[in-house]
Amino acid sequence: MAEISRTNLKVGENVSGQAQTIAVFTVKGSEPGPNVYIQANLHGAEIQGNAVIFELLNRLSELDIRGQITLVPQANPLGLNQKSGEYTLGRFDPVTGANWNRMYYHDLDFLPEFVEQHINADDATVRLHFAAKLSQRMSDAFHSPMGLKTGQNICYTLQQMAVEADYVLDLHTGPNSSKHLYVPEYARASAHYFNIPHVLFIPNEFDGALDEATFVPWWTLSQAFADKGRVLSIEREAFTLELGSQEAISFDEAKLDADSIMSYLSHKEVFANNPYQPKQMTRYGCMLEDYKTVYSPRGGLVEYKASHSEVIEAGQPLARILNIQRYGFDDVLTTISLPETVLPILHYSSGSVLQGAELYKVFYKYFEL
Amino acid sequence: MAEISRTNLKVGENVSGQAQTIAVFTVKGSEPGPNVYIQANLHGAEIQGNAVIFELLNRLSELDIRGQITLVPQANPLGLNQKSGEYTLGRFDPVTGANWNRMYYHDLDFLPEFVEQHINADDATVRLHFAAKLSQRMSDAFHSPMGLKTGQNICYTLQQMAVEADYVLDLHTGPNSSKHLYVPEYARASAHYFNIPHVLFIPNEFDGALDEATFVPWWTLSQAFADKGRVLSIEREAFTLELGSQEAISFDEAKLDADSIMSYLSHKEVFANNPYQPKQMTRYGCMLEDYKTVYSPRGGLVEYKASHSEVIEAGQPLARILNIQRYGFDDVLTTISLPETVLPILHYSSGSVLQGAELYKVFYKYFEL
Amino acid sequence: MAEISRTNLKVGENVSGQAQTIAVFTVKGSEPGPNVYIQANLHGAEIQGNAVIFELLNRLSELDIRGQITLVPQANPLGLNQKSGEYTLGRFDPVTGANWNRMYYHDLDFLPEFVEQHINADDATVRLHFAAKLSQRMSDAFHSPMGLKTGQNICYTLQQMAVEADYVLDLHTGPNSSKHLYVPEYARASAHYFNIPHVLFIPNEFDGALDEATFVPWWTLSQAFADKGRVLSIEREAFTLELGSQEAISFDEAKLDADSIMSYLSHKEVFANNPYQPKQMTRYGCMLEDYKTVYSPRGGLVEYKASHSEVIEAGQPLARILNIQRYGFDDVLTTISLPETVLPILHYSSGSVLQGAELYKVFYKYFEL
Amino acid sequence: MAEISRTNLKVGENVSGQAQTIAVFTVKGSEPGPNVYIQANLHGAEIQGNAVIFELLNRLSELDIRGQITLVPQANPLGLNQKSGEYTLGRFDPVTGANWNRMYYHDLDFLPEFVEQHINADDATVRLHFAAKLSQRMSDAFHSPMGLKTGQNICYTLQQMAVEADYVLDLHTGPNSSKHLYVPEYARASAHYFNIPHVLFIPNEFDGALDEATFVPWWTLSQAFADKGRVLSIEREAFTLELGSQEAISFDEAKLDADSIMSYLSHKEVFANNPYQPKQMTRYGCMLEDYKTVYSPRGGLVEYKASHSEVIEAGQPLARILNIQRYGFDDVLTTISLPETVLPILHYSSGSVLQGAELYKVFYKYFEL
Repeated sequence: MAEISRTNLKVGENVSGQAQTIAVFTVKGSEPGPNVYIQANLHGAEIQGNAVIFELLNRLSELDIRGQITLVPQANPLGLNQKSGEYTLGRFDPVTGANWNRMYYHDLDFLPEFVEQHINADDATVRLHFAAKLSQRMSDAFHSPMGLKTGQNICYTLQQMAVEADYVLDLHTGPNSSKHLYVPEYARASAHYFNIPHVLFIPNEFDGALDEATFVPWWTLSQAFADKGRVLSIEREAFTLELGSQEAISFDEAKLDADSIMSYLSHKEVFANNPYQPKQMTRYGCMLEDYKTVYSPRGGLVEYKASHSEVIEAGQPLARILNIQRYGFDDVLTTISLPETVLPILHYSSGSVLQGAELYKVFYKYFEL
Repeated sequence: MAEISRTNLKVGENVSGQAQTIAVFTVKGSEPGPNVYIQANLHGAEIQGNAVIFELLNRLSELDIRGQITLVPQANPLGLNQKSGEYTLGRFDPVTGANWNRMYYHDLDFLPEFVEQHINADDATVRLHFAAKLSQRMSDAFHSPMGLKTGQNICYTLQQMAVEADYVLDLHTGPNSSKHLYVPEYARASAHYFNIPHVLFIPNEFDGALDEATFVPWWTLSQAFADKGRVLSIEREAFTLELGSQEAISFDEAKLDADSIMSYLSHKEVFANNPYQPKQMTRYGCMLEDYKTVYSPRGGLVEYKASHSEVIEAGQPLARILNIQRYGFDDVLTTISLPETVLPILHYSSGSVLQGAELYKVFYKYFEL
Repeated sequence: MAEISRTNLKVGENVSGQAQTIAVFTVKGSEPGPNVYIQANLHGAEIQGNAVIFELLNRLSELDIRGQITLVPQANPLGLNQKSGEYTLGRFDPVTGANWNRMYYHDLDFLPEFVEQHINADDATVRLHFAAKLSQRMSDAFHSPMGLKTGQNICYTLQQMAVEADYVLDLHTGPNSSKHLYVPEYARASAHYFNIPHVLFIPNEFDGALDEATFVPWWTLSQAFADKGRVLSIEREAFTLELGSQEAISFDEAKLDADSIMSYLSHKEVFANNPYQPKQMTRYGCMLEDYKTVYSPRGGLVEYKASHSEVIEAGQPLARILNIQRYGFDDVLTTISLPETVLPILHYSSGSVLQGAELYKVFYKYFEL
Repeated sequence: MAEISRTNLKVGENVSGQAQTIAVFTVKGSEPGPNVYIQANLHGAEIQGNAVIFELLNRLSELDIRGQITLVPQANPLGLNQKSGEYTLGRFDPVTGANWNRMYYHDLDFLPEFVEQHINADDATVRLHFAAKLSQRMSDAFHSPMGLKTGQNICYTLQQMAVEADYVLDLHTGPNSSKHLYVPEYARASAHYFNIPHVLFIPNEFDGALDEATFVPWWTLSQAFADKGRVLSIEREAFTLELGSQEAISFDEAKLDADSIMSYLSHKEVFANNPYQPKQMTRYGCMLEDYKTVYSPRGGLVEYKASHSEVIEAGQPLARILNIQRYGFDDVLTTISLPETVLPILHYSSGSVLQGAELYKVFYKYFEL
């Protein structure tokens, strides 16, 4: 049986001078194996991952594992506790507006020199040295002489754990959303191990999020080697899982979400006897560049006509906007439709929008995996 | 066919110096009859009433009516447009915290003298003079020499229309809520004309809301007459309708809500031939003092187990609170239940709560109407 | 030398399930004497009182006192930590809009019976029993079976300490404000012991604040006795001190503010040899009913022309409002003045206002003390 | 005398379906000359620029000019009207957190082809065609088929005017700040024409702001020509002026600020007879990379010891942080100082900070211009 231990890490200090802490649960196996890092709730309203970690801990406490799994629920005490009205204002720092999931560390200035020094080393040595280099630079960044921003204190603390891991899972949710998964293009095969119907393939670019901060250095390394004619296999993977809608938890859904994650971990040989298999299901993929946002052409009141996960044919209504003050005029109602067939993945969480609100995000060109 | 006209009223000026306006729709009948006032969306997130007014206007444009109906959708441009994250921070003035629905005018200092002067007048004269007095005082209040607060500018503008009306309907919603209705105790019979299953009977006290601001003067007048041994019949009524949950509109539900309101108006002889009848349904009532709030005993993540409108027996779970950081301890999960059977009416709209959040509001002692 | 001890009290639990705590410092003297309670920063942006408590602790650590002084800085961890932009959104609960300083407990239903039972008791016994009754009811209220609201958890915890004290000082600040003091009418003489130039005399009415929650029961008691022809001397006093402007601390001003409080405590015989005397200064008083708010007649940009504490003659400009979009029209500039000479005490803290913002609060009819 | 005309432009629609508009003032001269664009208040709390535009309009109405000046006060109706407490939450979209000044359009994909086509054209033709190309692409971007974000609607509307101008001035303020000026490195000489003591030289990189969006294309063009061995003179300039502190207007300071801008315009030959000269003053410069942020190492209450514009020697205190709950421990006070002599330019606007707040921004290595 795996042993579960718990420590607290300080990620900041509030105005009262009190430490803001996160709880870190570590599951250690009896034999060597992969290092896995799972966190949840970096965005304050995206709470379902905590129920999933609860369910994972329940299961892991009754199994033996290979290697080590680190689980961090409620990863962002600031985001989680920022209420504005009944809802949680948890996507960005309320002081600066900075998205909590865009403050991870990334700097590959050292890469050209590293590649030159290691071009003749064997794969295992390259990976070992590269991992050490990333850890050391992460640590340096954490001890910046001018201090760190509020959000960097949080993100860098988390990232110091993630940078050590072979497999990283960052549990989020959408606003009003289907379950969907962000997958780096090179790790495409792994999409089949999660029980998640909608998959976005993202390019090798750093845009600030933890999954990118984790895999982009490795992918960039492999490409730098490829440029020099050498194939370097990288074994690290990182994913963002969007586990449905924000502002709610469901213990029943958490069981299904835990099945999905256990299946991926099985595939990565975290368990001795591969006890979890992925579900048989149709999975749809979309390239990130074809993941489109429909901005509201008007301010007004919206009835969302399209559920997420339901194909909407070209010309069919996605939403209807009511401008009641225009009663008696043609534009009292505006129907939103698109010129192509799409798969809606998520929609805005409120029925009242300003012009330019993100009404829907849709798979514009999608394909079966 | 009734004629529908539209005017704009200024209710304030924003920082840009621009007028904040509301649209007022007036439906005039071809013969005399009651004066009805209907408004919606004083709280910014409570938008369903606008769809109901849309549906009412559609129906009224095809009917003749008796008297006059004034309809004000989107009654509060400030509340409606105050976004904080995707949601609408629409219950209170973001500058002062003052609840938008607690700023109506109320002052009955003049009442003892009025009663003395009119104790021998006939009922119709009393009502006429009292209505005139209320209108005049409302107008005086609106022209206060030191100016009005931001919210008073809005509320007093609306109230100047409501004070002229025989019947006042204020369309709200709850957070995550069943349809329910606030009814003054003396107007209890009217609860049967709305298609609303849950009814709260409120006492003759002014707590700031429009329905109270409207009926409390009349009820107080009748009681002052009663104290002097005279029965004065008052014909004015005012109700707050809670049309389900906030942050969403549904055109289908709006049709049902419009049926409900048309039925009440029919009963009040707004239509020549009484075309709308109330639905056959079981209605449950509760006295306001038995409408209880369950405050969260913990901070944490909540799964709401009880739907609204579903009886919860004593000891059965209303909600479960997850404190994931307490994993491994007994209090990682807390179940919320009550010692008596209740009818939950609404619950908090977010799955994350601080200690002391309003988890549920429930009918504690309820009865069939 | 007085001994200073420190304890932590839990006042709530945040969404992370972590305790929200306050620090309570207790200074105990070597001989009996009054029980004093001082708190600061119930409103989150009103931080100067914390620097004052720092200065008081420094002084008290070098003195002996009579009795006991309890000091609670940063009394409201929720208000203090609620940032919205760079500023602190600390006047009201961001979930409900409820003013943090309007949630204290007050219920005098028991009073008539108490008076009847004690009308013939001696003064000391009446006071002793009344104090015990208030403590017990406070404790009952704290253990309400349906739980308490978020803000009540905080306020009731504080009030359980305040209810035991003879003298209560609640340290606040205004927005952009002169130093001013709220004094119950019956404790008028005490205004002379503080070094605060502007004094508001408040009636015996509970409006939710700590000073009122503390003194209104006692004053009401004395009046009930007076109604029965008996003079009961009450020795308890409670004051709200407004120590200048919010969002800033000054250690130099804190020394002056500490002088002021030490002078009051000297007068109340907290120190053996009365070491602190009030400053010679002109003090101006105003009845609460003559403390007037000037609401902005327009939305726009405001230049505040009147400093606080500087007499403004009738017709002289208090403020000028710029509506730049009206350039070319007469109303591009609006000058705000009043028909009577006033003493401005505070003004709004921002240069941009909606119509109905509280531009200034002024002493309308004031007098020298 | 110049003629001043006024038009309104729609920049969005609010939830009420009402147009959000800005006022555009155009001053046309009697003879040809430069096209100047001046806007203010894109960030909602940064209002002083509106008083400056008021003063500029007053002066321009009494002068003749060469060319045309477009002035847009209150450029962002959303930012200006977003109150949260008394203050203005005006730096970012409250829905998304996106900084209002990071949403301008920038895309130079077309540049290589343009350079190739124009490498042999004369300077005037290159500039003419490049300006036309930028305008056309700006217009295309504005008509994106999927719609624009809320902030893009505003920024792109403004930028369509700015892209036509030779000289662009974007009027901002800091939080609690000295007057300072952002200058593109190639326009360094122009720093001497403004009466602004502190100057930041920024590199040729687009980071989202209007000044960059305006000058980066032109500078990039000149560098692309330089790479091909040709010197192309560019005449366009764009500056961000930081006119002191936010949340306040001063008509007296506005006169000084208008002097400064009139001096720059004089230099650019907007006036026939060069009537305004820059003030004799010492100006300090700093490269953007040496403009450093000091993050707070603690949460707590801050007394800012250093005024802006006052040199702070190495080791001297910038600020003192009080952690009152640590009374009795060494860390109750923390002094912030730096290892090098700096010139503080601005500090955080609140006395209460979380760990990681931007306490100060300072010129680390500065020089006299």
